[in-house]
Amino acid sequence: MKALVYRGPGQKLVEERQKPELKEPGDAIVKVTKTTICGTDLHILKGDVATCKPGRVLGHEGVGVIESVGSGVTAFQPGDRVLISCISSCGKCSFCRRGMFSHCTTGGWILGNEIDGTQAEYVRVPHADTSLYRIPAGADEEALVMLSDILPTGFECGVLNGKVAPGSSVAIVGAGPVGLAALLTAQFYSPAEIIMIDLDDNRLGLAKQFGATRTVNSTGGNAAAEVKALTEGLGVDTAIEAVGIPATFELCQNIVAPGGTIANVGVHGSKVDLHLESLWSHNVTITTRLVDTATTPMLLKTVQSHKLDPSRLITHRFSLDQILDAYETFGQAASTQALKVIISMEA
Amino acid sequence: MKALVYRGPGQKLVEERQKPELKEPGDAIVKVTKTTICGTDLHILKGDVATCKPGRVLGHEGVGVIESVGSGVTAFQPGDRVLISCISSCGKCSFCRRGMFSHCTTGGWILGNEIDGTQAEYVRVPHADTSLYRIPAGADEEALVMLSDILPTGFECGVLNGKVAPGSSVAIVGAGPVGLAALLTAQFYSPAEIIMIDLDDNRLGLAKQFGATRTVNSTGGNAAAEVKALTEGLGVDTAIEAVGIPATFELCQNIVAPGGTIANVGVHGSKVDLHLESLWSHNVTITTRLVDTATTPMLLKTVQSHKLDPSRLITHRFSLDQILDAYETFGQAASTQALKVIISMEA
Amino acid sequence: MKALVYRGPGQKLVEERQKPELKEPGDAIVKVTKTTICGTDLHILKGDVATCKPGRVLGHEGVGVIESVGSGVTAFQPGDRVLISCISSCGKCSFCRRGMFSHCTTGGWILGNEIDGTQAEYVRVPHADTSLYRIPAGADEEALVMLSDILPTGFECGVLNGKVAPGSSVAIVGAGPVGLAALLTAQFYSPAEIIMIDLDDNRLGLAKQFGATRTVNSTGGNAAAEVKALTEGLGVDTAIEAVGIPATFELCQNIVAPGGTIANVGVHGSKVDLHLESLWSHNVTITTRLVDTATTPMLLKTVQSHKLDPSRLITHRFSLDQILDAYETFGQAASTQALKVIISMEA
Amino acid sequence: MKALVYRGPGQKLVEERQKPELKEPGDAIVKVTKTTICGTDLHILKGDVATCKPGRVLGHEGVGVIESVGSGVTAFQPGDRVLISCISSCGKCSFCRRGMFSHCTTGGWILGNEIDGTQAEYVRVPHADTSLYRIPAGADEEALVMLSDILPTGFECGVLNGKVAPGSSVAIVGAGPVGLAALLTAQFYSPAEIIMIDLDDNRLGLAKQFGATRTVNSTGGNAAAEVKALTEGLGVDTAIEAVGIPATFELCQNIVAPGGTIANVGVHGSKVDLHLESLWSHNVTITTRLVDTATTPMLLKTVQSHKLDPSRLITHRFSLDQILDAYETFGQAASTQALKVIISMEA
Repeated sequence: MKALVYRGPGQKLVEERQKPELKEPGDAIVKVTKTTICGTDLHILKGDVATCKPGRVLGHEGVGVIESVGSGVTAFQPGDRVLISCISSCGKCSFCRRGMFSHCTTGGWILGNEIDGTQAEYVRVPHADTSLYRIPAGADEEALVMLSDILPTGFECGVLNGKVAPGSSVAIVGAGPVGLAALLTAQFYSPAEIIMIDLDDNRLGLAKQFGATRTVNSTGGNAAAEVKALTEGLGVDTAIEAVGIPATFELCQNIVAPGGTIANVGVHGSKVDLHLESLWSHNVTITTRLVDTATTPMLLKTVQSHKLDPSRLITHRFSLDQILDAYETFGQAASTQALKVIISMEA
Repeated sequence: MKALVYRGPGQKLVEERQKPELKEPGDAIVKVTKTTICGTDLHILKGDVATCKPGRVLGHEGVGVIESVGSGVTAFQPGDRVLISCISSCGKCSFCRRGMFSHCTTGGWILGNEIDGTQAEYVRVPHADTSLYRIPAGADEEALVMLSDILPTGFECGVLNGKVAPGSSVAIVGAGPVGLAALLTAQFYSPAEIIMIDLDDNRLGLAKQFGATRTVNSTGGNAAAEVKALTEGLGVDTAIEAVGIPATFELCQNIVAPGGTIANVGVHGSKVDLHLESLWSHNVTITTRLVDTATTPMLLKTVQSHKLDPSRLITHRFSLDQILDAYETFGQAASTQALKVIISMEA
Repeated sequence: MKALVYRGPGQKLVEERQKPELKEPGDAIVKVTKTTICGTDLHILKGDVATCKPGRVLGHEGVGVIESVGSGVTAFQPGDRVLISCISSCGKCSFCRRGMFSHCTTGGWILGNEIDGTQAEYVRVPHADTSLYRIPAGADEEALVMLSDILPTGFECGVLNGKVAPGSSVAIVGAGPVGLAALLTAQFYSPAEIIMIDLDDNRLGLAKQFGATRTVNSTGGNAAAEVKALTEGLGVDTAIEAVGIPATFELCQNIVAPGGTIANVGVHGSKVDLHLESLWSHNVTITTRLVDTATTPMLLKTVQSHKLDPSRLITHRFSLDQILDAYETFGQAASTQALKVIISMEA
Repeated sequence: MKALVYRGPGQKLVEERQKPELKEPGDAIVKVTKTTICGTDLHILKGDVATCKPGRVLGHEGVGVIESVGSGVTAFQPGDRVLISCISSCGKCSFCRRGMFSHCTTGGWILGNEIDGTQAEYVRVPHADTSLYRIPAGADEEALVMLSDILPTGFECGVLNGKVAPGSSVAIVGAGPVGLAALLTAQFYSPAEIIMIDLDDNRLGLAKQFGATRTVNSTGGNAAAEVKALTEGLGVDTAIEAVGIPATFELCQNIVAPGGTIANVGVHGSKVDLHLESLWSHNVTITTRLVDTATTPMLLKTVQSHKLDPSRLITHRFSLDQILDAYETFGQAASTQALKVIISMEA
C-alpha cells in the first residue's frame, strides 16, 4: 500500500508499505477513505515530537471502512464505515474509566506518532471498539474527518474547559483551524460575545463569517485594551488560547475577567510567564487538556442535527498521490488561505 | 390611579386606587409602563391561590420608570427605566444567598399575590435593589416584559433544571406560553432534537416556527410511542412538563430515557402518580422549581445580543382601559390563539 | 461444584452443578471464596423478579480468585484475587461510556438474575476487565464483599445522588443494611446532621454507633414533625429513602427542605403518590438509580485509607454448607439482628 | 478608643482614635471583643499593599457585639453578637449575585486596608447585613475568630477550588496557618491521602496531629520525587499552594497528576514560571481566588456540629494593650511556633 512516511526532521516520503495486520484481539484494520493533515504533523516534521521516530506512517485523522477485526472486537465488523479518533482508548484503565481517554495507559495519541497512522491506504487501529465511531447512514463522510481531532479539540479543550455559557463573553486568541473549531462549537452555548483575535485580517474575516461577533487584529499591540473596551472594562468570561506561544498566553491573562477562565488549547514548546502577582486574587481558572475525544458521540449528533457544519473548515482537496502538495498547501496557510485539507485515497 | 383589582373568585374590576407609597427603606415606587397577564392570574381568579385576598391589585410582570426610592436603595434613582421581576428577593437571607430567591424569607412571589401588583399605573416594589433590573439603553421594552416571569420560568424550571445540552434530546409537553418559553431558551444549548407535544395543532405549528424539530399531537393517546419511535426506543434525555396535570406528568414518565430528567414547570393542583415500581432503577431525576429569576441578568444579555427574541411570545396588545378585554383574550387562548398579551398604561 | 439454586417462588436448593466455562472472549471464571446474601435475593425468592428463572444460581456479590480468562481479557490473569461487582459492564456501549454501567446494553445486573451467580464455588463473570476489581495486597477480603453491592448502592444512589455536603442535614429513612451503608458513606462529606429514621429501636441504636447524630422512631407517626423540629422547621437538605414502600417515600416528601433532594434507594413494587400540588414550587430534586458501581475504585481507596470500615456491616458468618441457615438468619433480621451475612466457600 | 494604626512601612502604633460612626444606611458599628493578626497585616507593614495608606487602623478579622446599625440594616440590632467577615459584600452587585463577594464593587477586602479595621475597640462594618454573621448561642467566640478569614481561605481557595474528594490524594505545600486551615477543612471530604510539605519539622509534626497522612520535608530538594513515590508515580489529584513564592508553585507543577488541580492560596509578589511545554497535555486545572467568605454559614454549621475545631489554630493570647507583643510573636513564628494569636479587647 501507499503511505506518507516520516523520515526524520524535514523529511517525508510517499512509500510502498506492507498492509498492516491484526496484532491484538482488540485491533481493527481500517481501509482509509479520507484523511487530513494536522498542525501536529508539521510539529513532527520539525523534529519537535520525540516520541515519533523515523519510519513512522503519519496521520491520526480519517474515515474509512472496516477491513478486518480481531477476536475481541464486538462493536464492529468488516464493511462498517467508521470515523477514526485521533485518540486510542482501551476503555478499561483508570484514566479511561474517568473519561480521560487521552491518558489511556495503553493508548492516547499514538496513531501516526508511536504507531503507524492514517495517511495511508490502511491503518491498524488498536482498541477498536472504543476508538472508532460508526458513521451514520447518509452522513457527509468528508465533513466527519473534522471530528477525528480538530472539532473535539476546539470543543473539549476550548469550549468545555472554558465553560462557555449562554450570555457570556468569549475571546479566542488565534483564528487558525483549531481556533475556528472552537468558534464553531462555542456557539452551541449561545454566548453573547465571541471576540476573535488574530494577526491576519483574512482569517478574521473568515471568523466573522463563522460567527464571531467581533474581531480584533492584534498586530498593533492594543488587543488587550480593545477587548477591555468591548467588555465594559472587565475582560471576558472565557479566553481560549489557540496558538501555543508565550505572547498569546500573556494576552489571555490580560483579557480574562475576574472569575473567568483561560482555556489553553495551543501546543506549547516553552514555558510561559504566569502573573500570579496580580492573578492570585482574580478568582481565575486556567485549564490545559490533550483532547480526549470523549465528546465524539455528542458531536456526531450535533452534525446529524445540523447544529454544526464541519465542512466549513475544509478548503482544499487532494488525492493520496498529491499528498506532498497537500502538505505544502497546508504548511503555507498564510498564502494559500488553507484551513483543513482533505486527502482522498481514491484518485 | 387605575388598577385591576381581584374581588374574590370569578370577580375582577378596574378601580381607582391610591398611589402606593414607600413603606420600607428598600422600597421603590415604579410607574408601570407595560404589564402582562400570567396563567397564575387566572388561577387566582378561580380562587385557587389562598394567599391572594380580595382587594388585591393583580399582576407580577412589567416594565416601568422609577418614581421614588427608599433611603436604603443604592442601585436605582428616580427616572431609571427598570424591568420588574415577578420574584422579590432581599439578597440577604439564607435562601437568597444560595440564589433561591423564590424562597426569600421576606419576598418570593408576593407581587400581585400577597401585596399589590403591577396591573396598575404604579406599584411598590420591595427589596428594589435586588428585585429590579436596569433596562439597557435602546432595548425593546415591550419585549422585556417577557423577562419578568415567563422566560426565566421556562429557562430555569425547564431548561436549566432539565440539563438540556448540545446534542441531547428534549421533549416539551405543553405548547402554551411557558412551554414555548422553554422551547426558545432550550435552543441556547443546541440540543439535537426538541419534540413539542400538545393537543392543539395550531400551537404545534407555532412550535415548529419557534424551533421545535418535531411535533407530536397527543390527542390520540399515542404520544409516548411516537416519542419512543423518534428516539431509537430510548426516550428523551429531558422531558419538560409545562402543563400541570396528572396526565402530562404521566406522559413525561413514559418518555424519559434511562439517565434522563423530568423537569416540572407546570403548576399542579393535585397529587400525581410516580411510578417508582419501574423508575426506581432508571437513574432518572425529577425536579421542581418556582422560578427564582436568578438568570434575569443573563437573559438580558442574550436578548441584547440577539440570541433570544422575547417579542415572539407577544400576540396581542391592549391599553389599561381595555384590560378586561385583555383577560378575555388571554383566557380564551384556544380560540384567540393568544400567547402573551401586552397592556400599555398609556392609552 | 456446589451452588444455591432458585427453583421457583419460595424454593431454593443447594445442588451439584457443572463448573461454569468460558463462553465469550471477555469472560473470566472466578473461584468464589466468599459471598453474601442481598435483599434482592429475597425478592427473587418471593417471585418478584421476572427476569430470574427457576434453575438460576443466585448471588451477585463476592470475592474470589481468577481461575481462567478468555482471550480478550487483558487486565487479569489466573491467580489474581478479585472483587466481583454486582454490575457487569462492557465499558463500550453508550451507557457505559457515560458511567451508567447499570444500563450496559450487554450487562447491568445480570449475575444471579439472568445468568448464574456467585452463591457457588465458581462463577462465570462476563466483561471481566470492566466488572472485576483487583484486591489490594493485605486487604481484608471479607470486608470487601460489602463493596460488591451494598456500599456502592448506599453511596451512589443515596449519598451522591442526594448531594450530601459539609454542614448539610441528612435524613435516612430505613436503618437496614442499605440505609446503614448510606449512613457510613454519608460521613465522607461531613454533614452537620444525619438523622436516622426506622421503626426498630435496635437498628436505631446501631445507627447511633455508626455515626447518626440523631435517631427518630417512626412508629408513632410523628416522624415528620420530629425531623422538622430538629431542623428549625425547614426539613433536611437530603432525604434518603432506603426502604421501598409508599409510606417511607411519603415521609421523605414531608421532611425535605425547599431546595433539597430526595434520593431514592429502595426497590419499589408499586407506584407512590407524588405531591406535586405542594412540591411543584419547593425547588426539590428526586432521584432514582440502580447502582452503577462506578465508584468501586474510589471506595476501595477509602477502605485502604481507613476512611471506611465495611466490616461493620457483617454480623454473621456461615460456610457454603450452611447457606440455607444463612438465608434463614438474614431473612429473619428483626429477630436475629442480622445485617450482612458472610458465606465462605471453605468449610 | 484604642486602635493599632499603620504609620507607613515598618511602623505601627497603638493610638487613641475617635470611635467610628455610622456613615451609610447599611453600616453597623461593632464593639470588637476579639481580633487576630493575619499574614496580610505583615505584608501591609512591609509596604507591599499599595491600597493601605498610613493612618489606617489595621485588622480584618474578629468577633464582637453590635453597637448600632444604620437605617437600612434589617438583619441585626444592637446587642447581637456577630462574626466579622474579612470581606465586605453588598449582596447586590453582579459579583455578589454570583457569590464572588471578594470582588464586590463597593466592598471586597476593604477592612483594615481601604477603611479602618478591627484591631481596635470599635469598627464600622459596611454592608452589615451581608458582611456579618450571627454567632450561635453557646458558641466558642474565640474559636470563631478563625472564621473571619483563615478557615474560609483555606477551604474556598484550597479545598473547594482544589476539588478535594473522597478517596483522592492531596498535597498541601506550606504548613503555616493557612496551609493548616486547608488541612483541617480538606478532611471534610475524606481524601485517602493528605501529604503536607514544609521546610519546618515542627510544623510538619503539627500537621500530623491535625490529620496529615504523610509529611515531606522539602529542604533537601527531593519533595517532588517523594510525593511521586507516595502516589504510585502519578502525583496528587490536588496540589494546594499555601506559601506564595515561585519555588512552591513550581513544586506544585511537579507533583500534580494528569487530570489534577493546582489550587493557589498563597499571596504572590512576583510572576512565576508556568510549564505549559509539558502541562499543555496534562489536563490540569490551576485556580486562584481571593477568599469570598461565601462558605461562612456552612463553616459555622460544621463548627456547631463538631466537624471542625477552629481553636486548634490558636496558639497565643494577648490583650489589646499587648498587641505589639502579639505582632512580635506572630511575626517570629519560626521561633515562637505561633499559628494564630488572639487579641482580646478586655484586659
